[in-house]
Amino acid sequence: MDNVSPIAPRPASDVASWDGEADVVVVGFGCAGASAAIEAAKGGASVLIIERAGAGGGASAMAGGEIYLGGGTPLQKACGFDDTPQAMYDFLAAATGPAPNEAKLSVYCERSVEHFHWLVGCGVEFKPSFYPTPCWEPPTDDGLVYTGGENAWPFCEIAPPAPRGHVPRIAGKRLMERSGGWELMRHLTAAAEARGVQVRTDSRVERLVVEASGEVVGVCGRSFGEGFAVRARRGVVLASGGFAANADMIALHAPAVAGQMLLGTDGDDGTSIRMGQGLGAQVARLEAAEAALPSVPLLVYPSILVDRFGQRFINEDTYCGRIGQAAVFHHDARCTLVLDEEIFESVPEADRWGARPTCVAGSVAELEQEMGFPDGSLQATVGLYNAHAARGEDPVFHKRAEFLRPLKAPFGAIDLGGLPYAVFTLGGLVTTVDGEVVGPGGRPLPGLYAAGRATSGIPSWGYASGTSLGDGTFFGRRAGRAAAKRP
Amino acid sequence: MDNVSPIAPRPASDVASWDGEADVVVVGFGCAGASAAIEAAKGGASVLIIERAGAGGGASAMAGGEIYLGGGTPLQKACGFDDTPQAMYDFLAAATGPAPNEAKLSVYCERSVEHFHWLVGCGVEFKPSFYPTPCWEPPTDDGLVYTGGENAWPFCEIAPPAPRGHVPRIAGKRLMERSGGWELMRHLTAAAEARGVQVRTDSRVERLVVEASGEVVGVCGRSFGEGFAVRARRGVVLASGGFAANADMIALHAPAVAGQMLLGTDGDDGTSIRMGQGLGAQVARLEAAEAALPSVPLLVYPSILVDRFGQRFINEDTYCGRIGQAAVFHHDARCTLVLDEEIFESVPEADRWGARPTCVAGSVAELEQEMGFPDGSLQATVGLYNAHAARGEDPVFHKRAEFLRPLKAPFGAIDLGGLPYAVFTLGGLVTTVDGEVVGPGGRPLPGLYAAGRATSGIPSWGYASGTSLGDGTFFGRRAGRAAAKRP
Repeated sequence: MDNVSPIAPRPASDVASWDGEADVVVVGFGCAGASAAIEAAKGGASVLIIERAGAGGGASAMAGGEIYLGGGTPLQKACGFDDTPQAMYDFLAAATGPAPNEAKLSVYCERSVEHFHWLVGCGVEFKPSFYPTPCWEPPTDDGLVYTGGENAWPFCEIAPPAPRGHVPRIAGKRLMERSGGWELMRHLTAAAEARGVQVRTDSRVERLVVEASGEVVGVCGRSFGEGFAVRARRGVVLASGGFAANADMIALHAPAVAGQMLLGTDGDDGTSIRMGQGLGAQVARLEAAEAALPSVPLLVYPSILVDRFGQRFINEDTYCGRIGQAAVFHHDARCTLVLDEEIFESVPEADRWGARPTCVAGSVAELEQEMGFPDGSLQATVGLYNAHAARGEDPVFHKRAEFLRPLKAPFGAIDLGGLPYAVFTLGGLVTTVDGEVVGPGGRPLPGLYAAGRATSGIPSWGYASGTSLGDGTFFGRRAGRAAAKRP
Repeated sequence: MDNVSPIAPRPASDVASWDGEADVVVVGFGCAGASAAIEAAKGGASVLIIERAGAGGGASAMAGGEIYLGGGTPLQKACGFDDTPQAMYDFLAAATGPAPNEAKLSVYCERSVEHFHWLVGCGVEFKPSFYPTPCWEPPTDDGLVYTGGENAWPFCEIAPPAPRGHVPRIAGKRLMERSGGWELMRHLTAAAEARGVQVRTDSRVERLVVEASGEVVGVCGRSFGEGFAVRARRGVVLASGGFAANADMIALHAPAVAGQMLLGTDGDDGTSIRMGQGLGAQVARLEAAEAALPSVPLLVYPSILVDRFGQRFINEDTYCGRIGQAAVFHHDARCTLVLDEEIFESVPEADRWGARPTCVAGSVAELEQEMGFPDGSLQATVGLYNAHAARGEDPVFHKRAEFLRPLKAPFGAIDLGGLPYAVFTLGGLVTTVDGEVVGPGGRPLPGLYAAGRATSGIPSWGYASGTSLGDGTFFGRRAGRAAAKRP
């Protein structure tokens, strides 16, 4: 058995006895699995979540916690922003392509306000205040933030911009440690418990169990060295995440991000995807991944980013996860931030996340030479940028005027080429809007559902912060509901 | 049943009677299928090829006919070029990545000279002469040509360059109509016939037939509206090509090339891949495609190519299929050739393939404005290029000195943005070096083999002309041999 191939199901006839059973069995206790469990239980099903770690949370609990919601949520309104499902759709269709998932986007945007209320109903609190400073995640307890470059080119011309990053309020927030994702999982866990959802931890699901008819009727796996098999009377929901922790799968399917840094847990090993494949499930976009630029927006926005040829390639004031994808997929992950002392000093040291100039120089020519850029290349780039910036314009990449100022001596450069991009995968199982896993003939595989990063979903290629917690919870709910209803 | 999902196999128990049988059944009569059939027959097997068109040939017969061979073939030696398997490997490993298929590359390079002799043994003739002019395919009957940018940066620094495009000699060659690929298929067809291979045309294979044990024992399909089922005593070889003719599969898996022009036949509909998936086969790199730049090397090499931001992005003297991939995957397929009158006039009209300037201008500033480039962008690019070219240098993208000359008035631009790129897909079934289709647990699916563009092979992502006919024939042979040997 290798670590990368489809996983064949186990015939039900091979299972001598079941170690447990439930109407709906959910694999993985991150936000998708929790949401599936809550809704399945609400639909009258007995539910068992099987989690390989010692407790729930997964990658969701490590997240900053932005949840991509919009279309006019109470939080958006309270902060004075207008939004519509159409504007939200238009932005996401442009930002998540190429080839956005139109069917999922439609229902996701249409029902986003309802989903906001559902989250609130689970106990999640959003403070009605907007955090305006460019950031990866708000250091404050403010509830609303821009997370996808909605107000930057080209999106600001495609759809009326509105912030859609909804951040759960958390007491004692500690960035990168205990943040909105942790808080989201705390509430979803409590909501699941309140609904009577059972949880089996320290148990690794390894195979689906399937009847000769092809119907999925359970899962089997291993816990502390002992095999177990659990029967699912109505359905199994796969929600154990993507495959960024599986280096072999990354090498095969998403080599552009090979060697970068995992953003997630070692449970993100692609097991859900591989179990689906073994049953003939369709997969999509396995090459796709989010790759966070290893810098902070406050430094990036007023500076210029150049590739190894000394050329700019994007407006630096867009979402830094979008910049990271552009850098990794289209520019060899070799880019350099070119700035000046004034920009560097304008960012408080605590907010620089340890960034230090690789090189400082009194002239661009000197910087160019010391950084090893091709002769004249950086000078041409900075010359053009500065000439435009002096007029408050960026006709090439359309950075907003508020972040435009000619760079001036002393200059500096921060080489991002050697720094790791934080990555997670976006491709996975193809599912219907109800979470059914699509198999041969385009038909749902009977009894099999999936949600979260085990599936190809809202961020089908392009990413915006909050779309993973967003589509994980949203389509997790729908998968749980559909599984509970199955006769 | 949709057009894009995995295709479930048909249980053998459902097949009441067989309409034919052979030891080895080959699906698709292009170069991979033909080579598999020849070698299976040579191995003692009775062989039946099933082809959906009225005759064999497929996309292979439409190809210019370059076959990527090297490591010191008699043709290379006769033309005065030194080459080694290692140099060939080093080039391909660099050119076909990210994530080249190392296992396949090793055996492909090690045994390339032997494969040359096999092709000659099938009747293919190579004229021992080198065609030096940059081209998509030689208009002459010369046998050897550069087809991958081996002598251009960065490859010329990675491995000793040698031309490896081996072009079958053909009487009455007609470019784009009856060329080396046609001739290759003529010889492979004759060789197959001479070995007693049977061919069933006008028959579309729709499903694999599988025993309850999972063993593939045949195929079934449709011919003039009538169903048929054919038994395969030893194995089935899937060789019906990629999926560039299937718009739905392109939209799902390879959206970067959606809307471009098919290079192939309408048989390239992904059926082989989908039948494999339905059995739990592993797939890889479905996002990958070759995309030929819609221009001719003679015009491109001495000019500059810029993206929509007016910036160069590659050395214009590399393989134009490589430039096409860069343009489509990394630069929105929106690029423009910027040249001058002298370059344009230096290319005979017949060799321009209809190219005409979109715009001519007396200055770069005027050209920039008329073509709608951002203010100053093209001027900066041409300024830097010209300053370097005047010294015979291109320190940014490393174009060779022989193609460097400052552009001068009158200037011209050819907008390639609206022109179609000729595309075919590169992703597909994962196979071992012996053509076994890899399924659950990393184990071969018993009785199932594949070759050619139905598989992910030598051009795993990056392309060089000749790697499709090359790996189709090479791994087709190995698949046929392995299938024939199966007990």
